[in-house]
Amino acid sequence: MADNSKIATLDSSIVSRLPTSSQTLFTAKTTKNLTFATIASELNRSEVAVAALFYGQAQASPADISKLSTILSLPEELLTEQLSQGFPDRGRAGPMPPVEPLIYRLYEIVQNYGYAYKAVLNEKFGDGIMSAISFSTKVEKEVDDKGAEWAVITLRGKWLPFTRF
Amino acid sequence: MADNSKIATLDSSIVSRLPTSSQTLFTAKTTKNLTFATIASELNRSEVAVAALFYGQAQASPADISKLSTILSLPEELLTEQLSQGFPDRGRAGPMPPVEPLIYRLYEIVQNYGYAYKAVLNEKFGDGIMSAISFSTKVEKEVDDKGAEWAVITLRGKWLPFTRF
Amino acid sequence: MADNSKIATLDSSIVSRLPTSSQTLFTAKTTKNLTFATIASELNRSEVAVAALFYGQAQASPADISKLSTILSLPEELLTEQLSQGFPDRGRAGPMPPVEPLIYRLYEIVQNYGYAYKAVLNEKFGDGIMSAISFSTKVEKEVDDKGAEWAVITLRGKWLPFTRF
Amino acid sequence: MADNSKIATLDSSIVSRLPTSSQTLFTAKTTKNLTFATIASELNRSEVAVAALFYGQAQASPADISKLSTILSLPEELLTEQLSQGFPDRGRAGPMPPVEPLIYRLYEIVQNYGYAYKAVLNEKFGDGIMSAISFSTKVEKEVDDKGAEWAVITLRGKWLPFTRF
Amino acid sequence: MADNSKIATLDSSIVSRLPTSSQTLFTAKTTKNLTFATIASELNRSEVAVAALFYGQAQASPADISKLSTILSLPEELLTEQLSQGFPDRGRAGPMPPVEPLIYRLYEIVQNYGYAYKAVLNEKFGDGIMSAISFSTKVEKEVDDKGAEWAVITLRGKWLPFTRF
Amino acid sequence: MADNSKIATLDSSIVSRLPTSSQTLFTAKTTKNLTFATIASELNRSEVAVAALFYGQAQASPADISKLSTILSLPEELLTEQLSQGFPDRGRAGPMPPVEPLIYRLYEIVQNYGYAYKAVLNEKFGDGIMSAISFSTKVEKEVDDKGAEWAVITLRGKWLPFTRF
Amino acid sequence: MADNSKIATLDSSIVSRLPTSSQTLFTAKTTKNLTFATIASELNRSEVAVAALFYGQAQASPADISKLSTILSLPEELLTEQLSQGFPDRGRAGPMPPVEPLIYRLYEIVQNYGYAYKAVLNEKFGDGIMSAISFSTKVEKEVDDKGAEWAVITLRGKWLPFTRF
Amino acid sequence: MADNSKIATLDSSIVSRLPTSSQTLFTAKTTKNLTFATIASELNRSEVAVAALFYGQAQASPADISKLSTILSLPEELLTEQLSQGFPDRGRAGPMPPVEPLIYRLYEIVQNYGYAYKAVLNEKFGDGIMSAISFSTKVEKEVDDKGAEWAVITLRGKWLPFTRF
Amino acid sequence: MADNSKIATLDSSIVSRLPTSSQTLFTAKTTKNLTFATIASELNRSEVAVAALFYGQAQASPADISKLSTILSLPEELLTEQLSQGFPDRGRAGPMPPVEPLIYRLYEIVQNYGYAYKAVLNEKFGDGIMSAISFSTKVEKEVDDKGAEWAVITLRGKWLPFTRF
Amino acid sequence: MADNSKIATLDSSIVSRLPTSSQTLFTAKTTKNLTFATIASELNRSEVAVAALFYGQAQASPADISKLSTILSLPEELLTEQLSQGFPDRGRAGPMPPVEPLIYRLYEIVQNYGYAYKAVLNEKFGDGIMSAISFSTKVEKEVDDKGAEWAVITLRGKWLPFTRF
Repeated sequence: MADNSKIATLDSSIVSRLPTSSQTLFTAKTTKNLTFATIASELNRSEVAVAALFYGQAQASPADISKLSTILSLPEELLTEQLSQGFPDRGRAGPMPPVEPLIYRLYEIVQNYGYAYKAVLNEKFGDGIMSAISFSTKVEKEVDDKGAEWAVITLRGKWLPFTRF
Repeated sequence: MADNSKIATLDSSIVSRLPTSSQTLFTAKTTKNLTFATIASELNRSEVAVAALFYGQAQASPADISKLSTILSLPEELLTEQLSQGFPDRGRAGPMPPVEPLIYRLYEIVQNYGYAYKAVLNEKFGDGIMSAISFSTKVEKEVDDKGAEWAVITLRGKWLPFTRF
Repeated sequence: MADNSKIATLDSSIVSRLPTSSQTLFTAKTTKNLTFATIASELNRSEVAVAALFYGQAQASPADISKLSTILSLPEELLTEQLSQGFPDRGRAGPMPPVEPLIYRLYEIVQNYGYAYKAVLNEKFGDGIMSAISFSTKVEKEVDDKGAEWAVITLRGKWLPFTRF
Repeated sequence: MADNSKIATLDSSIVSRLPTSSQTLFTAKTTKNLTFATIASELNRSEVAVAALFYGQAQASPADISKLSTILSLPEELLTEQLSQGFPDRGRAGPMPPVEPLIYRLYEIVQNYGYAYKAVLNEKFGDGIMSAISFSTKVEKEVDDKGAEWAVITLRGKWLPFTRF
Repeated sequence: MADNSKIATLDSSIVSRLPTSSQTLFTAKTTKNLTFATIASELNRSEVAVAALFYGQAQASPADISKLSTILSLPEELLTEQLSQGFPDRGRAGPMPPVEPLIYRLYEIVQNYGYAYKAVLNEKFGDGIMSAISFSTKVEKEVDDKGAEWAVITLRGKWLPFTRF
Repeated sequence: MADNSKIATLDSSIVSRLPTSSQTLFTAKTTKNLTFATIASELNRSEVAVAALFYGQAQASPADISKLSTILSLPEELLTEQLSQGFPDRGRAGPMPPVEPLIYRLYEIVQNYGYAYKAVLNEKFGDGIMSAISFSTKVEKEVDDKGAEWAVITLRGKWLPFTRF
Repeated sequence: MADNSKIATLDSSIVSRLPTSSQTLFTAKTTKNLTFATIASELNRSEVAVAALFYGQAQASPADISKLSTILSLPEELLTEQLSQGFPDRGRAGPMPPVEPLIYRLYEIVQNYGYAYKAVLNEKFGDGIMSAISFSTKVEKEVDDKGAEWAVITLRGKWLPFTRF
Repeated sequence: MADNSKIATLDSSIVSRLPTSSQTLFTAKTTKNLTFATIASELNRSEVAVAALFYGQAQASPADISKLSTILSLPEELLTEQLSQGFPDRGRAGPMPPVEPLIYRLYEIVQNYGYAYKAVLNEKFGDGIMSAISFSTKVEKEVDDKGAEWAVITLRGKWLPFTRF
Repeated sequence: MADNSKIATLDSSIVSRLPTSSQTLFTAKTTKNLTFATIASELNRSEVAVAALFYGQAQASPADISKLSTILSLPEELLTEQLSQGFPDRGRAGPMPPVEPLIYRLYEIVQNYGYAYKAVLNEKFGDGIMSAISFSTKVEKEVDDKGAEWAVITLRGKWLPFTRF
Repeated sequence: MADNSKIATLDSSIVSRLPTSSQTLFTAKTTKNLTFATIASELNRSEVAVAALFYGQAQASPADISKLSTILSLPEELLTEQLSQGFPDRGRAGPMPPVEPLIYRLYEIVQNYGYAYKAVLNEKFGDGIMSAISFSTKVEKEVDDKGAEWAVITLRGKWLPFTRF
């Protein structure tokens, strides 16, 4: 964890866009003062996946629920009710185009390099797409020689060729 | 290079959104039947950077221009005129939200995981953003044990903390 | 083919949104007065796939190009130049939401039944999506007992479960 | 039903866009842990139609209401009040363009193949549209030789020719 | 025809949104100084249908083409080429919401009375829609006792009940 | 009244867009199980006008209020308070473009025939518009020889010529 | 005329949105270096009406055409061809919301005072609107005691009460 | 005041867009059955300014607050709390483009005559804008010889030339 | 502080877009009748930064929280809870394009001078951007010789050159 | 001038949005290889003003035209024709929200700090706006102790209080 010892919490003004579980999970995380790194380590999942789970953008397995119950000191029954039924209704955490500066930078990368990615991917793989479903992602921190910090985001998706029909 | 031996070309219907150099460069690339991998190797730059340069989203150095002139068999004077003056006017290669399926998948990753990235980055680095300017990116191809192909995109940006003022 | 003996042509007012090959192909189709059914039969592909190819939304194989050259009486060299290089830049044939009544009806089906499809698919397959890439589609005509005509569109896509990471 | 034994529930964050009956029906479905397949079988209707009914996008007949009352253990009077009066106010279940990845894929199919469908349908039927009202749809699951799962969605609509006037 | 002896022509600034036939037809109409009433009378069709045909929003029959050739003094071959092949690509004549005051008034009627129409139509016919395809429309002029002029637009569409499935 | 004996009610999810009176009126209408035809007959107004009044899109006269009080068994004082003060704040009953299929069909008519209406109206009346304010409208039901049902909507507006200044 | 002796001309970048007559008229006005005040005085019309006529937003009478021909030294035949046939296709001169600062200020007045105007007009006139068709407008210049200049725009429209039906 | 003796009230469905003071003021106005003309006369301000104040679009002076307290029989302390602190947060009373027919007509005037106003103002005053801040406006009623009513809106703004820098 | 002795407060209608802390802070500021200048002086930060902090657009340090607790007479525990955890979720204070006239003027400056700024910055610094993160800003008041007041806003951001990769 | 010796040129893909003079001026500037700093120095104007003039966003005085003619070696007659007549039609140089990263950062500053600026300005000046018309702006370059470069943009506008009326 960085020098900055603050943890991510849930802004009350976006609660209405998210499932009930988001508030339950974030409130407990805040109370216990846990980072996503700590929780992810317990669940043996990527930090990004766990954060996505908190925002209602990813699914929890029964084992995840059990571990979350322990680490967050939440009744397993409550978590089961809020997380084990239904399927994530994705894509509504924030507006697009993003207004949040950090998220906008990612959007801008797609805007500026979108066609470049397409050209390079097409040449490497043919006519198709990189899946965002058969997909994983992670965030890493690097510090260079001069002490400058760098964020490294890796996107890894299965290549899906267009079916000929 | 993949089995698929086709190369990326410039769709005539987006030419009007791009600088004059885009057509010059793509036409020569098509004639010479070169991949971005080949050209990038000559320029000692990332394939994505070279493709971005072709789409008018990145700048060419005098050395780049000289090498492009050689590899694409284009008069250096012409490339100098089209590439050495002025500064890229970025962000207009395609519409947002993207309508192209490959590019849309990248947009969808931002839509679905945007807040998760923000939460994880904030916890790792504090209050700030990952720069999209002090930034580099690359595309790699992996083949897993079962022969399935995976695209791996890496985004690496300098961390910029919000200034206290 | 239906009683209605007219064939689909390319409206001049959308030409600028499409690749050069669209005009080449449609002009020849119009001159030869061929339906997509006839051409599809020659290419051994679905009519929808062939129409998509004409609109620049699908890729032609070398064999397709050769057969199109024959059936449309177009120089194979010309078709090779326009179709064999580059990759389709999809999604720009028409505006969304669609203004064309026929296409709007399809959009309306997604608008009205989108969540119903999601609920049923999630229950049948789990958390994931039906691919639009590993995908095929076809159009059939049925005539019921009273002589009424019905259009049947089939969408068949591979199920992709969200990766756990 | 699939291996995945979870059922579709109603995300609390979209409740305000739907009629009162949606919450009543989904809550009971969740409590009784019933799939749409099970309920549809009781009502002798398509799963998609039943899910649409739950989302307020389709109408319930008196017989449907009676059966729903039994299968969901809800007072018939309550269901009658919420379902037997008024007419569905369709189209507001989710935003367009869809932000949910599964629903977006369907939207993308319309975006990419819209004009291809129009061309093929016009050639087969003449100048008109496939009705989305005199219309039915179903979802099926196929498993191919290699064990891969495929979703098959069928759209069947009456052909309506434009009236000459 | 009204006191006002001017005829409708085609504004050059919308030509690019319309099919080639629009310019051919309007230019001839202007040269011959014909009203839609006169042309419609020859074709035995509604004035609105004929105007729609001129704007590329309706289909011409072979007989229509023949009569148009005569009345507009245009080569039948030319009209056949522009009108007998292909199918109307509707909905692109003007922007929505309309910026033209006359057309905006019609849009405003839908905006203000849309739900009222729905409520009344549902009570009269049940759950369904008034078709805009199995549809005809006409415009009439009335002059009241005080000499005031009134426009009367009639919309007549087949009622389509939602299919139960 | 049609075979279909259901009446129009107010969807709870659009209540917040409408004035307080809408809920009062619709609740009473539902309790008394009255159609707009019945109420309109009492008020000696068009059904569409009455439905518009219920949706807050038209004004009630003191006599209307008195009759509504009687027919709906609502305290005249309550209706007077909710209906006799203030002026309708029109145009907010539903979104534009409409997402409801029935209302969308009316919107589509404007989209497809807007310029055709303009051309015909201009030729019949000169440069001006059909008023949507000095305006009345009605809905009628026709059954043709084959038993098919047709909806007929009539729009009648005063012609307003553009003032010369 | 003001100290500022420049005259309004037509920006070449908006020509494509306007009818052919706009370029004809503005070019002649520029050549002859005439203000709208001078031309309006000749036509005995408001300056705003004349400017609107130049932008294709108002109609010219035969007498207007004759006078314009004289004052602008343009062949009457040319003006007759461009102005005497057809009807203005209004509303397309500029984008909304306006990006031009002067025009935006007018838009902002509507945005800020719209409901205030409605409240005051309703109290003065009842339920209705101020017509924008039976309408005239003018622009005046005032100079106050301190030499400050004020623009005064007057909007005068017929009051149209909503018809009771 | 007009024959129409109704007064403007606050539609409950827009309350959430306005400051707390709007509801306080309108409720009292409704209870006391006062027109804006009456209140404006007491405050010695324009009716439009007073209506704008009620909608939170204009500021109240201490003297205004005192007089409003008297005329509306509201505790001065309450009004002071709601009106004397803070600054108006303008522009959110209604949507743009306006959906209310009366307000839309004003918007349409800007849409149709925007460039004409600009041309005339530029010629009269030079390069600049008419201020919407150093600005006043009023509404007047005229009745012509035939008894027809006309609304006259006057906009008076200071001319601001663009600074040369 | 200016003659105008009013202070900025929080409009109740935008509360739902902001974090809980905004209401806490603004309510206390209003009760204590403090300007941002006073608070900023205590915190030794820029007024704009403090106002941004109140709107949830900037972060508070532990020392800031402690000082705010004192100056606003708020329990430090409460402020710690609302301000010391989590990270600002920026960009949602108001709509874009802004509807508030003061904020719109800033937006208009970007609209009108955006490309001019880019051209000048590129020439002075090369290919890159002025950071909005490594950034500070301040507002100053100037009074010129004639007593006219001028607002001076300074934007100071680190120059970030695009990385060559 | 910076190390970077490139000058700003005009991207061919935005030429159609700008007046004719933009291309004339930029072409000459490119040929002569002049920076805006050099030209501004000759005209005794701000660099930003000169760049704005090149983009058609600011007006040229007769003296400016004469000096531009000399410094750019362009016929004074040509510049007079393109620059001395008409008035700038501002706001169309680029899209909003901006897609260009440099310009987007300025937009983001307005998005994030808009309400903070408003609060601080209101407290300093009262109820009003900072004019964007009686306005000047400049760009400066600072280099700090560590050699880092900073861009400083100053916005200076006259304060305009809302008129009481």
